[in-house]
Amino acid sequence: MGDAAETSVTTTSATPSDWGAVDSSDVMDRLVSLSKRRGFVFQSSEIYGGIGSTWDYGPLGAELKRNIKDFWWETMVTRRDDIEGIDAAILMSPKVWEASGHVAGFTDPLIDCRNCKHRFRADEIEGMDDPHCPRCGSRDLSGARQFNLMFRTFMGPVEEDAAVVYLRPETAQGIYVNFLNVLNAARQKVPFGIAQIGKAFRNEITPGNFIFRTREFEQMEMQFFVEPGTSAEWLERWREERRAWYGRLGIRDAKLRIHRHTEDELAHYAAAAFDIQYEFPFGWQELEGIHDRTDFDLRAHEAKSGKKLSYFDEEAKQRYVPYIVETSAGVDRTLLTCLVDGFREEGEGKEARTVLKLHPRIAPVKAAVFPLVKRDGMPEMATAIHRRLRQRWNVFFDDGGSIGRRYRRQDEAGTPFCVTVDGDSVEDGTITVRDRDSMEQVRISADGLESWLAERLA
Amino acid sequence: MGDAAETSVTTTSATPSDWGAVDSSDVMDRLVSLSKRRGFVFQSSEIYGGIGSTWDYGPLGAELKRNIKDFWWETMVTRRDDIEGIDAAILMSPKVWEASGHVAGFTDPLIDCRNCKHRFRADEIEGMDDPHCPRCGSRDLSGARQFNLMFRTFMGPVEEDAAVVYLRPETAQGIYVNFLNVLNAARQKVPFGIAQIGKAFRNEITPGNFIFRTREFEQMEMQFFVEPGTSAEWLERWREERRAWYGRLGIRDAKLRIHRHTEDELAHYAAAAFDIQYEFPFGWQELEGIHDRTDFDLRAHEAKSGKKLSYFDEEAKQRYVPYIVETSAGVDRTLLTCLVDGFREEGEGKEARTVLKLHPRIAPVKAAVFPLVKRDGMPEMATAIHRRLRQRWNVFFDDGGSIGRRYRRQDEAGTPFCVTVDGDSVEDGTITVRDRDSMEQVRISADGLESWLAERLA
Repeated sequence: MGDAAETSVTTTSATPSDWGAVDSSDVMDRLVSLSKRRGFVFQSSEIYGGIGSTWDYGPLGAELKRNIKDFWWETMVTRRDDIEGIDAAILMSPKVWEASGHVAGFTDPLIDCRNCKHRFRADEIEGMDDPHCPRCGSRDLSGARQFNLMFRTFMGPVEEDAAVVYLRPETAQGIYVNFLNVLNAARQKVPFGIAQIGKAFRNEITPGNFIFRTREFEQMEMQFFVEPGTSAEWLERWREERRAWYGRLGIRDAKLRIHRHTEDELAHYAAAAFDIQYEFPFGWQELEGIHDRTDFDLRAHEAKSGKKLSYFDEEAKQRYVPYIVETSAGVDRTLLTCLVDGFREEGEGKEARTVLKLHPRIAPVKAAVFPLVKRDGMPEMATAIHRRLRQRWNVFFDDGGSIGRRYRRQDEAGTPFCVTVDGDSVEDGTITVRDRDSMEQVRISADGLESWLAERLA
Repeated sequence: MGDAAETSVTTTSATPSDWGAVDSSDVMDRLVSLSKRRGFVFQSSEIYGGIGSTWDYGPLGAELKRNIKDFWWETMVTRRDDIEGIDAAILMSPKVWEASGHVAGFTDPLIDCRNCKHRFRADEIEGMDDPHCPRCGSRDLSGARQFNLMFRTFMGPVEEDAAVVYLRPETAQGIYVNFLNVLNAARQKVPFGIAQIGKAFRNEITPGNFIFRTREFEQMEMQFFVEPGTSAEWLERWREERRAWYGRLGIRDAKLRIHRHTEDELAHYAAAAFDIQYEFPFGWQELEGIHDRTDFDLRAHEAKSGKKLSYFDEEAKQRYVPYIVETSAGVDRTLLTCLVDGFREEGEGKEARTVLKLHPRIAPVKAAVFPLVKRDGMPEMATAIHRRLRQRWNVFFDDGGSIGRRYRRQDEAGTPFCVTVDGDSVEDGTITVRDRDSMEQVRISADGLESWLAERLA
């Protein structure tokens, strides 16, 4: 439930130079525009005027999102012996949300204007010296009332209380209720973790900042089950591991920081918690939460379900309910961070370019192949190179317009390498590879291209 | 909307030998039990008694599902120049479902029992000679009434008509409403396709057959936009391409067939349609639908949105609304097919084994590494081999119990290769690789193991 509470938006200390020639206050607008133009992110149902802060990923965005999720899964599941992956359903028993506290407590206080009938978050109004409706100016306001942030729907054909189900507001609970099943099937020993990637839904009153806070979003969560008394140490280990992951994702270190939750900020289930924050153009914001959730969740589900959710330590011959250290990240938010962090406007006049400096590991297109001109065997050679590389990576072929324009298009798409086949290539079998960031060009053998790229894309 | 209509369940003609020693009527029960025991599929919210035909994927199931989705994406998107991937939101504007016909027509007729208040699909009762409630026997039944199969919820904090949204019942509409955005951003030319993988929801009255028909499910859909007049030809090409895909997935050809829709079966939007069917223990059932949807969908969205959804052919200098050929597959259904098709009980007595003959391409664990005994350098050598392979694949290490038991465990998990390190290995650097299906063993050099596996896992 951690990040349902709003993090206060502070004025950014970033200078324009963090994004090159563009002023920080313009970065988000430029990025939204680039995202639509190049096919990273479209407004959902745009031909119908859109729908409340919901977004669709276009061709480049869908690849970028896949690459980010794959890199997380590879790091957290595939390369580790002590973490198992699962994929639980979005629709769960409503008892799960009673046990977790979401039915009773996952709420925001709202105030109604009795005059214009609009509804506001209580903190938008309660902070005023002289409270009145921000929309119509009326002072005829209701008191604050609690509204639940879970999406409610009905399973089966009858819309009655007995059939109420919720869209999960977090993926974590799908892990807790499967704790015993995973423990038994995978024959793991504590300490071990369970990880999953999946959609979650929160009926946020004030979504916003592009894909930063949306009502439908995707989480990458890992719950690490540890012996009581060892959770503080694991909390620190996971904080360091997860911060390092953003570095491997290519995010600039100076724009990341760790924030330790104060007593006031701690969720009711947490003994201690850290946020990994990123400095967006709209301020420092939470990227990922690392929480010591104690034994709160397993005990809550034990009490509600009547099933023992404990672990028997064969060596120490003792039974206990494990503590849980959680790492909770958002896919959409991570993707936004990659776009924001890589965005630059560089150069002036004819040399001006917009570039997305995405890490090659997650770039949607790994390389583009260009014949310099459409004759003298160049298209044939470029096509052959493209076909070969395409067996292994997402590689783009472009023979339209000047080489300069083709470079600019790939810069905006975040493509790290452009391969040009020219007249000499046909003669001597060499090609030019141009680096997106340095714009430097090297001439290498076409036969060696695949291994040259493989080294740089790992 | 195609597969909302129930396909009639015919008595299977499969003989017990299709699954080895197990009778076909027992296959599903054995598979559900294996799935839970080994961590392929768990009942969702099981500690709370489960929830209407909803299932969670455990560690092996989550990997298998990822591998199937990745193989589809690689085949349909990454390796092709003429198909773009997208990832649209589950929550869309309600106008989308008005335009598509789902609000008015995505319904099943239901009959109420006025005595016990239970509700039934009309066809369950209308086929009876003497209609009465299947549950309490009462003849006091309502007439048939239409109930919409879409899940309804509310966006924003107020549950009122203006805020009604639906969980998408198919991913296809997310492609149609993004047609222009993708066309412009990706600079494609007709014919081209748009593909996506994502969750969809249908409030089915009678879900069942394990993960075959569930209310929450995942689709892999591709919409191919073609010039009017060419759709019949594309329909045949896609039927062949898609059938071949199931072969590459390892499904036995004799258990696949093509069913051409009769006039009665055709959906209102379709000019012609084929199903790819598989012979499950519970009968021949639809795996994937290949539909010529004509220009129905784009024209419906044009009419409702007032936006032109046409294409200008630069060469022929003509503008038209493209026809659409759709390939629509289910992830859960494909995964069930892989489990069912690979399931065998073989041998007798001490030699008896249960094995999942999954294609190495999609097997969740690619190889297991065993030290023969826990001494004389074998554990160290096996651990080193495991660590090296783990950098590349999901590989399991097991040093518990007899080698025979370890083989049996991997057979049930569908692991294609088991690597054993014995006393000779430590001396001469060779290891034994045992094949899951033939149970034959070969002795090869440990140094050559990685490339030996790479050849067989591609």
